[in-house]
Amino acid sequence: MSDAQNAENQQPSKKAQKKAEKAAKKAELIQEKKQAAGDNAAATDGPDGEDISKDLYGKLPLIQSTSKPDRTLTKLKDLGVALADQSLWVRARVQTSRAKGKQCFFVLRQQQFTVQAYLAVGEKISKQMVKFAAGISKESIVDIKGIVKKADPKIESCSQQDVEVHVEELYVVSAAEPQLPLLIEDAMRSENAEDGPQITVNQDTRLNNRVLDLRTTTNQAVFRLEAGVCKLFRDTLDKFGFVEIHTPKIISAASEGGANVFAVSYFKNSAYLAQSPQFYKQMAIASDFNRVYTVGSVFRAEDSNTHRHLTEFIGLDLEMAFNYHYHEVTDTIGNLFVEIFKGLRDHYADEIATVNQQYPAEPFKFLEPSLRLEYREAVQLLRENGVEMGDEDDLSTPSEKLLGKLVRAKYDTDFFILDKYPLAVRPFYTMPDPNNPRYSNSYDMFIRGEEILSGAQRIHDPELLVERSKHHGIKLDTIQSYIDAFKFGCFPHGGGGIGMERVVMLYLGLDNIRKTSMFPRDPKRLTP
Amino acid sequence: MSDAQNAENQQPSKKAQKKAEKAAKKAELIQEKKQAAGDNAAATDGPDGEDISKDLYGKLPLIQSTSKPDRTLTKLKDLGVALADQSLWVRARVQTSRAKGKQCFFVLRQQQFTVQAYLAVGEKISKQMVKFAAGISKESIVDIKGIVKKADPKIESCSQQDVEVHVEELYVVSAAEPQLPLLIEDAMRSENAEDGPQITVNQDTRLNNRVLDLRTTTNQAVFRLEAGVCKLFRDTLDKFGFVEIHTPKIISAASEGGANVFAVSYFKNSAYLAQSPQFYKQMAIASDFNRVYTVGSVFRAEDSNTHRHLTEFIGLDLEMAFNYHYHEVTDTIGNLFVEIFKGLRDHYADEIATVNQQYPAEPFKFLEPSLRLEYREAVQLLRENGVEMGDEDDLSTPSEKLLGKLVRAKYDTDFFILDKYPLAVRPFYTMPDPNNPRYSNSYDMFIRGEEILSGAQRIHDPELLVERSKHHGIKLDTIQSYIDAFKFGCFPHGGGGIGMERVVMLYLGLDNIRKTSMFPRDPKRLTP
Repeated sequence: MSDAQNAENQQPSKKAQKKAEKAAKKAELIQEKKQAAGDNAAATDGPDGEDISKDLYGKLPLIQSTSKPDRTLTKLKDLGVALADQSLWVRARVQTSRAKGKQCFFVLRQQQFTVQAYLAVGEKISKQMVKFAAGISKESIVDIKGIVKKADPKIESCSQQDVEVHVEELYVVSAAEPQLPLLIEDAMRSENAEDGPQITVNQDTRLNNRVLDLRTTTNQAVFRLEAGVCKLFRDTLDKFGFVEIHTPKIISAASEGGANVFAVSYFKNSAYLAQSPQFYKQMAIASDFNRVYTVGSVFRAEDSNTHRHLTEFIGLDLEMAFNYHYHEVTDTIGNLFVEIFKGLRDHYADEIATVNQQYPAEPFKFLEPSLRLEYREAVQLLRENGVEMGDEDDLSTPSEKLLGKLVRAKYDTDFFILDKYPLAVRPFYTMPDPNNPRYSNSYDMFIRGEEILSGAQRIHDPELLVERSKHHGIKLDTIQSYIDAFKFGCFPHGGGGIGMERVVMLYLGLDNIRKTSMFPRDPKRLTP
Repeated sequence: MSDAQNAENQQPSKKAQKKAEKAAKKAELIQEKKQAAGDNAAATDGPDGEDISKDLYGKLPLIQSTSKPDRTLTKLKDLGVALADQSLWVRARVQTSRAKGKQCFFVLRQQQFTVQAYLAVGEKISKQMVKFAAGISKESIVDIKGIVKKADPKIESCSQQDVEVHVEELYVVSAAEPQLPLLIEDAMRSENAEDGPQITVNQDTRLNNRVLDLRTTTNQAVFRLEAGVCKLFRDTLDKFGFVEIHTPKIISAASEGGANVFAVSYFKNSAYLAQSPQFYKQMAIASDFNRVYTVGSVFRAEDSNTHRHLTEFIGLDLEMAFNYHYHEVTDTIGNLFVEIFKGLRDHYADEIATVNQQYPAEPFKFLEPSLRLEYREAVQLLRENGVEMGDEDDLSTPSEKLLGKLVRAKYDTDFFILDKYPLAVRPFYTMPDPNNPRYSNSYDMFIRGEEILSGAQRIHDPELLVERSKHHGIKLDTIQSYIDAFKFGCFPHGGGGIGMERVVMLYLGLDNIRKTSMFPRDPKRLTP
């Protein structure tokens, strides 16, 4: 009865319902080959054509918390041979349904778990009940009472391969509209399938119908892994003695030069959305919190419609006092990433495998401790490989990608730290290199050749900070409270800001940051 | 040598420096009583009046990561008799300094930990060095090499009472300006001190100079406890099977009726700042994430200048599918709070005690399981105590406060759940009570008589949602993507939103929410 294996992508529209009805009628006329034990269709009607199953199915009234029944709902992931021949209740979505004569097959789904359910006209199941079952639209939520039966052969297309559920009672809890704007099966199909072109779902359709798109096992895995990245970030930093803080998003002045900032009406004044928690995490250091991190939204009014830019994303930011050298900071951040990568490898292997099924990627490689290269070495490596660039030129996106490939080939790692950037390409608060004023105590970090963190030692001396602000043409009055923060003694410090969505995208080898933002925002998208 | 106990609040200004110099001169003229072992002032000058200590003190150059010295800095909290007679390095702030003849006393501070340091003119310490020490401005950061000495009697005014540090070398790492806008000692003084009126610091001065204000042991404790609330919130929900999500703050339409929302310029269009993650966490439920939470900034454009309103605060939001009754949700949230309260009690006792020193409060009481009252019971209780109100009137702030007192007297708890609010006072997406259409399946939760959570069963049926939206006069086109989210099957669900700063304020019995927001935002404050 492993019929789900070749289930059609049938749309349960009215057309489909009619088709199902037709099929059912046809089934009455033609004596079909008996399909299964208990399939004794002749006995399904009562004496007067009465529906013998009428109390065993139907559409439930809206669950409005009327009662607290003493009923346990079993999770699909717990369905296995250990529960064989037991009768139990499940609540799940109908992922696919297929009527076949006097039978109906469902694939039921709960997040990433699926099981086959089956009902056929018989002693207790009426034609009407099977017809009702066949008419349930895909993605509807149903309550099913059924008996767990060992499946032979295994049901390869379901996560629960060893059993199926023989339906005894069936109720619709929440019906989906019959016409779905996208089908979950289509949205889960690998775009690189070897068996020729197939239906896939384009990105705008996905994002316009995100509530459906997010139901794919791939997306369930992506966002569970994303939650894991945040948890590993926080737990590791907690272990390292950091304190979590929260910083304001509405700020009085465009902080870092004024470009790319969203303006907000603030009562009778105007304000801006913070492009980063930079100033505030540094103020927390000046306030003696010593080591801080913050996870929160950051906003960039960049009109960039690329694969890796969002106008709003989640920043995983950290900042710490150090004693003598900012490499205490780079080492800490390097160790943080090692802990994150180990945690993902050890605790999210299922999620990674699930995502790889739809989006194949090279397994992620990292070193312990992390590799740190100097900018000058990177420039040299690029030049050796045909890139023409000046010593102090910033890296272009293609150069970064190439660098990632060259570093992987040479050092066998997808993650590395690039240290000592030219001063000219860094923000005004970056500490200059004491040994060479054209360089700075700053670094970026990369995953698979794309930047996922930018950081530096910061200037903790108010006079030097004023000097560098002026050099960058920043109006001092707009950043006065920031500069003042360093007038009452401040520990030398440094830190960095990580783009959460980029880390997840690049770690998984995905091609677009919209795949790792639950409800992405870009210059053209504000809904849902 | 326990001189810190009666240290003066002396401002280390130029005037103070002169005074110190004068005192030093006077000390040379008058033969003082010997103060301590090794105080042999006559031997401090070299043959030609040379400074014998000149290589033992001074102002360090800016720490720009020039070198990586192999030197361990000991934490103040680790200083105790176990380290007696050892020579070691510390880096700390000068909280107070006091010159007294040929001696100088410091109180050094690292976050909430303090220790006394001492130096006097002697065999290796010159007059010039003591003078330099006396001139160091409060809040400057210093590196000190010193010998740990047992203190007898104990130094009651420091956290490290058993030892003091005898200075051998002394360097200024980062100097504070001599004039501080507020003194840490003043900012830490209890406003309810029994020994008459004393200098305290008003709230605006604190907030204008937040970087100094946050250095008080009280504030160090408040924000460490606040981090603890977030950690307990997340860890408990992780344990309960929730998934962390992130929701957009920039939204296309003012979601909940249009009032109290900040407008944002979004390229050529306009957008708004989300007043809550409400719609998005519900969409995550419709997307099969089953149980979700999110911690993030929420924005309210309310022109309210009260003790408990901010224009931007941190929402601890959760939402979960349930099976039959929304009390599954209230029970989960009740259990969540019990876990938070237990965690604070068991792991943050020091922080609570520290805050109570400055701001005394009644010890916090809670029940396990949490108390749940019905709105009608609360109205009755209030009426019995003289409050006149209709059955379906909303609770005024004074009524809520009184209710908190009455509940505490009757049930011995500072936390309770108030269930079944009148439908009329709740948002459009609230599920009506099936037994009485004037009430609803909604609840608030209270700490010490103030609301800290609002929540409900939500309407998961698109038709009923449209009906209720219309009833509330909401333009359907502005919330279309939200309504559409429920068209493809949705589990019954409910949740709530917690105001993080309110929880910390009320748990600690503080009187103003600005005390629990690191950089608060209200209609009049946008800086720092």
